Amino acid sequence: MGKKMTTAISPTRSEDYPEWYQQVIRQSDMAERSPVRGCMVIKPWGYAVWENITRTLDDMFKKIGVKNAYFPIFIPLSFLEKEAEHVEGFAKECAVVTHHRLEKGPDGGLEPAGRLNEPLIVRPTSETIIGDSFSKWISSYRDLPVIVNQWGNVVRWEMRTRIFLRTSEFLWQEGHTAHATSEEAMELTEKILHIYEDLVENHLAIPVIKGKKSPAERFPGAEETLTIEAMMQDRRALQAGTSHFLGQNFARAQQIKFQSSEEKEAYVWTTSWAVSTRLLGGLVMTHGDDDGIVLPPRVASAHVVLLPIIRKEGDRSAVMEYVQSLARERRDAVYQGRPVVVEIDDRDIGGARGWEWIKKGIPLRVEIGARDMAENAVFVGRRDKGHREKESIPRDRFVGEIGSLLDEIQERLRTRARGFQQDHTCRIDDMDAFTRYFTPQNQAKPEIHGGYAMAHWCGGENCETAIKNDLGVTIRCLPLEEAAEEGRCIFCGRPSDRRVIFAKAY
Amino acid sequence: MGKKMTTAISPTRSEDYPEWYQQVIRQSDMAERSPVRGCMVIKPWGYAVWENITRTLDDMFKKIGVKNAYFPIFIPLSFLEKEAEHVEGFAKECAVVTHHRLEKGPDGGLEPAGRLNEPLIVRPTSETIIGDSFSKWISSYRDLPVIVNQWGNVVRWEMRTRIFLRTSEFLWQEGHTAHATSEEAMELTEKILHIYEDLVENHLAIPVIKGKKSPAERFPGAEETLTIEAMMQDRRALQAGTSHFLGQNFARAQQIKFQSSEEKEAYVWTTSWAVSTRLLGGLVMTHGDDDGIVLPPRVASAHVVLLPIIRKEGDRSAVMEYVQSLARERRDAVYQGRPVVVEIDDRDIGGARGWEWIKKGIPLRVEIGARDMAENAVFVGRRDKGHREKESIPRDRFVGEIGSLLDEIQERLRTRARGFQQDHTCRIDDMDAFTRYFTPQNQAKPEIHGGYAMAHWCGGENCETAIKNDLGVTIRCLPLEEAAEEGRCIFCGRPSDRRVIFAKAY
Repeated sequence: MGKKMTTAISPTRSEDYPEWYQQVIRQSDMAERSPVRGCMVIKPWGYAVWENITRTLDDMFKKIGVKNAYFPIFIPLSFLEKEAEHVEGFAKECAVVTHHRLEKGPDGGLEPAGRLNEPLIVRPTSETIIGDSFSKWISSYRDLPVIVNQWGNVVRWEMRTRIFLRTSEFLWQEGHTAHATSEEAMELTEKILHIYEDLVENHLAIPVIKGKKSPAERFPGAEETLTIEAMMQDRRALQAGTSHFLGQNFARAQQIKFQSSEEKEAYVWTTSWAVSTRLLGGLVMTHGDDDGIVLPPRVASAHVVLLPIIRKEGDRSAVMEYVQSLARERRDAVYQGRPVVVEIDDRDIGGARGWEWIKKGIPLRVEIGARDMAENAVFVGRRDKGHREKESIPRDRFVGEIGSLLDEIQERLRTRARGFQQDHTCRIDDMDAFTRYFTPQNQAKPEIHGGYAMAHWCGGENCETAIKNDLGVTIRCLPLEEAAEEGRCIFCGRPSDRRVIFAKAY
Repeated sequence: MGKKMTTAISPTRSEDYPEWYQQVIRQSDMAERSPVRGCMVIKPWGYAVWENITRTLDDMFKKIGVKNAYFPIFIPLSFLEKEAEHVEGFAKECAVVTHHRLEKGPDGGLEPAGRLNEPLIVRPTSETIIGDSFSKWISSYRDLPVIVNQWGNVVRWEMRTRIFLRTSEFLWQEGHTAHATSEEAMELTEKILHIYEDLVENHLAIPVIKGKKSPAERFPGAEETLTIEAMMQDRRALQAGTSHFLGQNFARAQQIKFQSSEEKEAYVWTTSWAVSTRLLGGLVMTHGDDDGIVLPPRVASAHVVLLPIIRKEGDRSAVMEYVQSLARERRDAVYQGRPVVVEIDDRDIGGARGWEWIKKGIPLRVEIGARDMAENAVFVGRRDKGHREKESIPRDRFVGEIGSLLDEIQERLRTRARGFQQDHTCRIDDMDAFTRYFTPQNQAKPEIHGGYAMAHWCGGENCETAIKNDLGVTIRCLPLEEAAEEGRCIFCGRPSDRRVIFAKAY
């Protein structure tokens, strides 16, 4: 190319954010579109991040007594119909199984055969099928609480899909619990939200705001939806995890009853909660830069790549021996309870090799040539810094301090993301300012707008809907940690006792 | 009950083996039938065993360089049709998705709507969808080998189902690899078989025989299927894991080609391999007894249950303190790289409590009452022994030796199962004896017959089919470790150079 390449990814974030996102994922080898409409293939480099997330979260769940279980992928149509709001919420995007075999048709090709008496829905979420089990498992207060979690896949037939963020099939965990009292169920709903916050902030290095959803934005069938909301680099919000207090809605719909200690029959109180592979999209959009993705060390697919630099063929065996011995030294090292994963890349492909690892977002790139060997040093590039900022570090110090180096990167990513979020959050009390805040200043880049607006809201659905229709802005949450404050609704001027977060969202 | 209860499970194995199996699973709380035809619910006690199996196997895979990934659950019908034998093998048991939403029908109920242009099959196995990715990922010998594994669910619409053994949906791992040479692909196929043997023998304590399948019993589309075969207590064989050498069949069907180092274009050589939740059925049927399941310690959901025995209310707090301190002491203990899982059951439900844990198969039951405390001892029941054979062990010794105690149980279960298999394996050279061996002696118990027959087979499909039709007996495998031996086919008398294993099978 005649043009000087200044960034590894084209377009850059500021040139075209949505296209940058697609390119970054493609070039990092995280995932790709599949030939099945709206479904993705999660490639090993992306799946390893998901595995790290699942192991971390699963350990957190187990510490509070969550037990894993597995329920059928198919939900009979009649089950889904039991809770009216719930079926309403999912009916438009269901994959429906209607037949159970294939047979040769008149033209010789295979056709669906063996029609089912009742269609089966590929689970979009499992409240109704798990509720059926709960109704059999629970009869007395002694059987409560029931706290189960399922790791699995779900299907929602989305019309507009984007890898990780919105796909027809995705991976997730869904927790489902039943309790004797409303208080206990609400307490569990909150406890899970705190676990999600811990996971996303401390492991994915994505700062979040905890809050309640407005009634219109709740999960179909929930009485309260708690959420953690993250801000992407295009200043849009991403709902990163939700925990639902379902009241007795599903218990009533599915007859999940128990005998209390006073021998009275009552409906249980249920909750459900989930995070999904969507988090991988959040990771890319929070930390990625114009050279590719940037993986936080605690969930990185690998931590270090060793890159032997062989300038003369005569150096090869000595350099490779040095690299191998360095890899061996690291073999038993542990970072955050998991082994430090070291890759060796000795491919002879020139500068493309280093760029590949930059695009893949590996935290540390370590170049080792004859000169480094002579100095008993390694030449280290950190992914959280510019690609030219490399540093020679004595070998022993590098080996001894790798854990703290990774921690430093982890913390720096989080601090940077927190700063970005704060820089793009604004208290707004005037509808004109609010409208300007959410109106793109540059028509060529419709994605660039203000960010989060902390504004007063009267609690009325009409105001919420009007703002959504006019500006494409929704109430992301009523933040849990925002102090009460007298004010007037940004839209209608009626009294309000707290600010909520408005934003454009994924 | 007036009748003296001698076993916890009714019927016993010898009274009605198939019904015993259903009862044992129900009463152990491992799993249950779901309202969705042929699908199961895996309950926490059963799922924990599956989790232990998956973590153990996943670690083994990672050690040889297997990378996990995830591919779509849906397979377009046209993909499945590409390999003729393959689609033939699965067409009769496919869940077919034909619509992508629900709409109110004329009678007000919801009906499938939004017909798909091409039906999608819920994956029965993923060779064809993963092969599509391989065809995009692979272009040069430098891209090879590709070694990926997927943990997930699959669906095969079985008409007769039995929990764990044959269900419409089950959980499994499926590995898929592509190689530059036939030799390398075959080597990988064998390496995986050895990993499966290690898992099943050393962790599930189920002895297996490794072998090749006869051509008729191969996976649809495979050139060679390697298998591990276990023997259940009704002397039937259970195929516990298979590893397939697919030759270039799928590569040709899906155009998976690469440029060799000599710049020639060639098809890759592929393999696939799987174990599933069927292993849980094998576990139950190998080790279970007339009191319930018996969990091998290395995969047990929990290792020890502490049962406080409170004869006088005044003893309660002292006994509970003793139990809690014992549990604390065990908290950091590790068995086989995982924490020793200790349950405390202080429910006041009399003798039913101990029986519940026996039926659940927990390796060690530890009773602690005032007398044990006074002696600074614990009263230990081992699940591999009779339920009355309990032993008082000094507390310190119990705490110090728990690992070796669990190892002893693990080894004893395997030795016992190995002995059972050997006792019911017979070399047979005469068709009359062969027929008698496989003919139930008691018409009331059609499941009781000889077991494995090591017999000569000419290699002809006719003889194999005739034996299958006459006796319901199939060739389980051509054992890898069986020495060559001249002989004559048990059915037709033609020459044979080795014995194969015939058995009835699940």
